[in-house]
Amino acid sequence: MHLISYDIQNDGLRLKLSKALIRYGLHRVQYSVFMGDIRDRALHKIKMVLNQLSKDKNWSVDDSVMILPLHQYSEDHISFVGKPPSRWDEISGEIHTLIL
Amino acid sequence: MHLISYDIQNDGLRLKLSKALIRYGLHRVQYSVFMGDIRDRALHKIKMVLNQLSKDKNWSVDDSVMILPLHQYSEDHISFVGKPPSRWDEISGEIHTLIL
Repeated sequence: MHLISYDIQNDGLRLKLSKALIRYGLHRVQYSVFMGDIRDRALHKIKMVLNQLSKDKNWSVDDSVMILPLHQYSEDHISFVGKPPSRWDEISGEIHTLIL
Repeated sequence: MHLISYDIQNDGLRLKLSKALIRYGLHRVQYSVFMGDIRDRALHKIKMVLNQLSKDKNWSVDDSVMILPLHQYSEDHISFVGKPPSRWDEISGEIHTLIL
């Protein structure tokens, strides 16, 4: 399970990254926060995309992407105030199915 | 160690929450993502602030705050592409000091 979040100024680069994260198996849990149980192969591909985006002329020096591997402890203790992510039951169900 | 991230539409509520998160010991690592090693007492206070904000007339039905307790595994394996958070050495140093 990984959490990937970003601060990216350029709309085009941000959209490219969000599409790539979803394509490689992550779920959007907030506007700039994605989570999901992805394999090493998918993570490797995401890192290749990031490497490419960070060399783009529209990449800003302030742009930042955080890659945070999560432990089951986090998955067991996550909570939301307000609206949970859409399809959260499905996402968390998938997470638990993959873990058990 | 906790990660707290939010999607909040109203500028005033968002600012109130970001100030509260920082006051109670979290560090801003991205625009809407905060991390830090906080005690139960501080987390309790943050939850009280969230409870209050979520009852505000400006709170939107789409607003969402995620509270994610992190395991040391995450802290040991975190990585950034692009700009790391400002004062990241200090933050991660503090994190490691508190853990060791």
